[in-house]
Amino acid sequence: MDFSVPASVESLLPEVRRFLEERVLPLERDFAARGFFEVEPQLRALREEVRAMGLLAPHVQKEHGGAGLSLVEFAHVAEVLGRSTLGHYVFNCQAPDAGNMELLALAGTPSQQERFLKPLVRGEVRSCFAMTEPDRPGSNPAWLSTTARRDGDAFVIDGHKWFTSSADGASFAIVMAVTNPEAESPYARASQLLVPTDTPGFRIVRNIPVMGEAGQGWASHAEVRLTGVRVPAENLLGGEGMGFVLAQERLGPGRIHHCMRWLGICARAFELMCQRVVSRELSPGKPLATRQMVQEWIADSRAEMDAARLMVLRTAWLIEKEGAAAARDEISTIKFYVANVLQRVLDRAIQAHGALGMTDDTPLAAFFRHERAARIYDGADEVHKASLARRILARYGAKVS
Amino acid sequence: MDFSVPASVESLLPEVRRFLEERVLPLERDFAARGFFEVEPQLRALREEVRAMGLLAPHVQKEHGGAGLSLVEFAHVAEVLGRSTLGHYVFNCQAPDAGNMELLALAGTPSQQERFLKPLVRGEVRSCFAMTEPDRPGSNPAWLSTTARRDGDAFVIDGHKWFTSSADGASFAIVMAVTNPEAESPYARASQLLVPTDTPGFRIVRNIPVMGEAGQGWASHAEVRLTGVRVPAENLLGGEGMGFVLAQERLGPGRIHHCMRWLGICARAFELMCQRVVSRELSPGKPLATRQMVQEWIADSRAEMDAARLMVLRTAWLIEKEGAAAARDEISTIKFYVANVLQRVLDRAIQAHGALGMTDDTPLAAFFRHERAARIYDGADEVHKASLARRILARYGAKVS
Amino acid sequence: MDFSVPASVESLLPEVRRFLEERVLPLERDFAARGFFEVEPQLRALREEVRAMGLLAPHVQKEHGGAGLSLVEFAHVAEVLGRSTLGHYVFNCQAPDAGNMELLALAGTPSQQERFLKPLVRGEVRSCFAMTEPDRPGSNPAWLSTTARRDGDAFVIDGHKWFTSSADGASFAIVMAVTNPEAESPYARASQLLVPTDTPGFRIVRNIPVMGEAGQGWASHAEVRLTGVRVPAENLLGGEGMGFVLAQERLGPGRIHHCMRWLGICARAFELMCQRVVSRELSPGKPLATRQMVQEWIADSRAEMDAARLMVLRTAWLIEKEGAAAARDEISTIKFYVANVLQRVLDRAIQAHGALGMTDDTPLAAFFRHERAARIYDGADEVHKASLARRILARYGAKVS
Amino acid sequence: MDFSVPASVESLLPEVRRFLEERVLPLERDFAARGFFEVEPQLRALREEVRAMGLLAPHVQKEHGGAGLSLVEFAHVAEVLGRSTLGHYVFNCQAPDAGNMELLALAGTPSQQERFLKPLVRGEVRSCFAMTEPDRPGSNPAWLSTTARRDGDAFVIDGHKWFTSSADGASFAIVMAVTNPEAESPYARASQLLVPTDTPGFRIVRNIPVMGEAGQGWASHAEVRLTGVRVPAENLLGGEGMGFVLAQERLGPGRIHHCMRWLGICARAFELMCQRVVSRELSPGKPLATRQMVQEWIADSRAEMDAARLMVLRTAWLIEKEGAAAARDEISTIKFYVANVLQRVLDRAIQAHGALGMTDDTPLAAFFRHERAARIYDGADEVHKASLARRILARYGAKVS
Repeated sequence: MDFSVPASVESLLPEVRRFLEERVLPLERDFAARGFFEVEPQLRALREEVRAMGLLAPHVQKEHGGAGLSLVEFAHVAEVLGRSTLGHYVFNCQAPDAGNMELLALAGTPSQQERFLKPLVRGEVRSCFAMTEPDRPGSNPAWLSTTARRDGDAFVIDGHKWFTSSADGASFAIVMAVTNPEAESPYARASQLLVPTDTPGFRIVRNIPVMGEAGQGWASHAEVRLTGVRVPAENLLGGEGMGFVLAQERLGPGRIHHCMRWLGICARAFELMCQRVVSRELSPGKPLATRQMVQEWIADSRAEMDAARLMVLRTAWLIEKEGAAAARDEISTIKFYVANVLQRVLDRAIQAHGALGMTDDTPLAAFFRHERAARIYDGADEVHKASLARRILARYGAKVS
Repeated sequence: MDFSVPASVESLLPEVRRFLEERVLPLERDFAARGFFEVEPQLRALREEVRAMGLLAPHVQKEHGGAGLSLVEFAHVAEVLGRSTLGHYVFNCQAPDAGNMELLALAGTPSQQERFLKPLVRGEVRSCFAMTEPDRPGSNPAWLSTTARRDGDAFVIDGHKWFTSSADGASFAIVMAVTNPEAESPYARASQLLVPTDTPGFRIVRNIPVMGEAGQGWASHAEVRLTGVRVPAENLLGGEGMGFVLAQERLGPGRIHHCMRWLGICARAFELMCQRVVSRELSPGKPLATRQMVQEWIADSRAEMDAARLMVLRTAWLIEKEGAAAARDEISTIKFYVANVLQRVLDRAIQAHGALGMTDDTPLAAFFRHERAARIYDGADEVHKASLARRILARYGAKVS
Repeated sequence: MDFSVPASVESLLPEVRRFLEERVLPLERDFAARGFFEVEPQLRALREEVRAMGLLAPHVQKEHGGAGLSLVEFAHVAEVLGRSTLGHYVFNCQAPDAGNMELLALAGTPSQQERFLKPLVRGEVRSCFAMTEPDRPGSNPAWLSTTARRDGDAFVIDGHKWFTSSADGASFAIVMAVTNPEAESPYARASQLLVPTDTPGFRIVRNIPVMGEAGQGWASHAEVRLTGVRVPAENLLGGEGMGFVLAQERLGPGRIHHCMRWLGICARAFELMCQRVVSRELSPGKPLATRQMVQEWIADSRAEMDAARLMVLRTAWLIEKEGAAAARDEISTIKFYVANVLQRVLDRAIQAHGALGMTDDTPLAAFFRHERAARIYDGADEVHKASLARRILARYGAKVS
Repeated sequence: MDFSVPASVESLLPEVRRFLEERVLPLERDFAARGFFEVEPQLRALREEVRAMGLLAPHVQKEHGGAGLSLVEFAHVAEVLGRSTLGHYVFNCQAPDAGNMELLALAGTPSQQERFLKPLVRGEVRSCFAMTEPDRPGSNPAWLSTTARRDGDAFVIDGHKWFTSSADGASFAIVMAVTNPEAESPYARASQLLVPTDTPGFRIVRNIPVMGEAGQGWASHAEVRLTGVRVPAENLLGGEGMGFVLAQERLGPGRIHHCMRWLGICARAFELMCQRVVSRELSPGKPLATRQMVQEWIADSRAEMDAARLMVLRTAWLIEKEGAAAARDEISTIKFYVANVLQRVLDRAIQAHGALGMTDDTPLAAFFRHERAARIYDGADEVHKASLARRILARYGAKVS
């Protein structure tokens, strides 16, 4: 057993942390107040600095133009980046592009990689992933209403999507659509298609107001209508009927990315909480830190964050060593476990800040409202708990559908 | 024992409910999207309808122009109104005006009542309450930095306040300031002063961005600077050094108002959750409602809401019967208990809505982010828990500071 | 609304409390150390005192020889009695006899009442209720393996029961058995039969060791085998196929009894906790009571106990006013809600006592281990939560089996 | 990073597991029903088998006669042994002897080791550790009332101890007593003394009834009076005034032992829960395992156990690598974190068993009641949380006493 930080990233982490604090954090307030498009030029400039550090697209293999970190190595970096809303973006490993890069690296044809992956890895364009539908539950990705009908050398897509994050300004979308409705297994009915967003019939209805903010650009979640959207058959990603399988593949390492990012948020919130309680006085000379109820928040948060972190790193290690299939239980577990730790730590940090915690004078309020989604996207808590339990119980002989 | 709704309001409640649903709810979306000032004319029109129903300022005594409901009666009405963000406003019993009306009715001189209370009760003006300070903890209202120095026939106020809710557009503020710094008891140092907001030196620095929204008008929380603000001595409310005592008086029935409003929010969220889970299908013919984890949310929410409701009504009854002093324990208890029920019910309702719960397509997301403050304002959970416990333990002989 | 203690019992309660503390509590340690049979003579003597107070079998109608308290009145008395493990026994309203008295009063023929009810109410005999079976879930009382076959003028019963509480030394059992296996509704298959325990074939296999104690007499839970047990047909209680309906009837007021008893336990544990924390010093002059984490236990316990108590009293009032059917939701709710409050309060009280809390030098350890069953018997938490939720959701149109 | 089981014990663990299940588990019921002394001969025989496996006293260095496992290696073995109440005893690494062996190995003089340590490691005698006092809080081990007065070449001890586990039948006690009351630091006042239990004045008052059981022999917790107990000065362990420091030393690895034992209990309870829910039918063909509320218990338990396990192993690794002082935060954290996971997992396992869970027909009920102490001994949750938080906050500059 060895719980050390891998030597390969040990010296890197303080450097990333310093860059993040000195160069990225100062942009946060502008980003929050003025929106994505206003700060995009500055973000682009920062990316050039990261490129010079050799760390742009850190999770992508070197052959595809990335920095080529292993999953465990990237996990450590992702935790540091997660401290800022902008960290992953500046390093070009932000959702949904990060997952799309992985998909294209895994399943793209050479020409698809040339056309779609390379500009993405270089940070020249953005992309989106159109799977979720307003009328169908995210917990059942095998049940979609969007269709892609074969018509000669093309597919014609019709459907209604939402929570297509970052569609606003993206150059292409990966769209999940039913191509084989007659396939016996519901998991073999959908395919993924590469759809340039300027294709006629692809229309962003709105950026959905989420927790009071419609956002813009990368920081938005679109409702999308696809009406007779025609793409050449060569835009099919990874084979007909492979949509569901690929979506699952996308989730494995993506889970590690999200969880480590959440732990970065936790680390930031924890620090803010500690700083607050040692400096805020209840009466002269008597800081909040003297209050045992507050001490309990500190202790519980520390324990839960440590626990969560070890579980995610162990899962990353296991995926690396034995593959995502062998780590299925662990991948489910960290999803719900870490998301709940995140919510509790944020809740305590806000409470420790009192009225200030409700304001946008700290990043806590934004984390609190937007990261509430962590317990919902990529499978709600309940979905993961039930599926984990059923897999375990099946080993005891349960026949649980 | 009798747990029935008082006969005096039994027939009233369905009427209020119907008015709320037919006339008030349709305004919510506009209010959320376009802001307070845009919908103010419509709100004013609705208030005329409420006036015609004889229910404007329901909690204010008839002699002062209100509808004269008892505290228990008003509690029932407040629960119904709480279902909408706009309910209390339309009935002119919204915070902070409701509390200010009570203060003025209780402690105002006839001329103060003529000048400040009457227009407030008639709904012609708005007011605010400037107590909280950015540099001092809300948990220690005896420790204020704002001062009001006697200067001849006037007081000159200097200080810095924030979370002065609804200051934007208010015609006057009630300002807590230290007038007697040398008083032995820290609880006898502050006074309350009636300050027209057009007094020179009274300046709104900004509407504080709270959970992503700075808001406007009634729906805002201001940071305020008072610099050499001069008001005549007759603007003193209730005697020098009485500031803290009056602030406490203000909290008693105010606690009932808040708690019943929160329970109205719970009721609305619970209904939305139930409607959602019976209609949202996980697969054809299999609604969310069939999932036991969801059923547990329904059952736990029902139980907690019932419990909370009974505690608040009992407290209202006790205040009515024996006065707020006799109900001190209960008043502390409902504050933290109900606020936590509110947070849990909202959290479950959002989870039941999945991605939709994160959007502003339902009122849940706004409730979730803004009502997080319920555990903070008017005394954070921890303050009430500690003070309740110390009072109880004192009866067992504890000498606990 | 009126939350006062009913005038009819207001003066009674201090008297009952004093009797309990002065006469009953001193017996507890002997009962715990030496067992039921050793202290039975003293318990019998105390019952004579209670009889003289006119309070024996307080919940039973006067026409049947009881004290004739209403459900709400009895609820208040039951709470006081619950402070001691022996309280209900001394007043002859202990489970399972209390429920059996209610059943016999409700559904017994005059001759059954003469033979079985009267001696029970007078406290001359004890009884038991044999429903639960080791091989069948308690959550599905319609699914029993015990049968009662009609044979001429008699029924012949065969089956296997356990958790037949107090069978050891009981003079008769009420046995649930399937008499009509062919009935269409599973709820119409079982009947209840009065079975004297000296009937051939009725055999107590063992007093089941529960949490380390097999117990004895009233304080025991038996495993029972019924082999060809023959009772005359006139021993049928309330009609063939009525077993399930009667069992449900038995649960309604029984729920109130249990819940108020649990609240009595809570009250005792709370007092012990308060006394402990004000007297136990962490260092000279610094009692446990100064610790905020401890204060939080006090505050949370107080809040939860108040909430639970109001819910139970409201339910009792509703049953009295509109019948048990109208209070079905409330009856489910209090079962799981109060049982969980009980467990939390006991857990905190033990923690506050440290090592002493683990010992039998206080009653807390016995309450902790034995009352763990509160979340299991008469329907586990999960059963009540699911059934409450399904009833609520059915009103929203859900078709939830 | 490497999360693998160390190669050095990988092959050992299945062997230990098999031995435990085949040889040790069958003894449990007898032990529970008939007591320690009755099964002692069989336990002694099993120890001979373990000795033959070369695994007796696995945690003790080879030079002192143990198996010489490293802390991380032993942690893995301890988890397996923890599955049975008797596991650690059979391998001669049970509390309190295990800690006493460590103390003697660390601080004993050669002649102390010869006389006290060797027979202990060989399993020929038992010992106890007399620190806790009924009148002083365990959270303040610097505040003791027991004294050891120097009298020529001897110490004369007077005091009152309790929870001196396993004193019944022990051949010697290590007694904490104040030798230097005038020392400036309260942490330098106490010493540890080796006291043969047959020394005049050493008296076991009683085996304290704990959760209904006084127990006997190794499985008991004694109240002890020391009256003029005279031991030669050479029985001083580790220097005058070193008592507190040594007690702390004893806790570090002891924490790992306890936590891994608790995780063994969790593993056993989890297995029993899984086996139960797949086999117990709610209705024909519909096992408990189909219920989502039950699935949530499985998923939450799995997650929490994994989290706890990683934290303990990481702590063991850190102690091994950098010493206990460097791992102080982690040692505090695992104490409260794992103890609470243990309690929750046991609670769920019992709930899943229904009435059966309350009986002694499974080991769950005994685990539930006796392991409640895990949150109390060796520092209650609250003590560890507060001290962890204060250490963390001190790094942020807090001056928190």
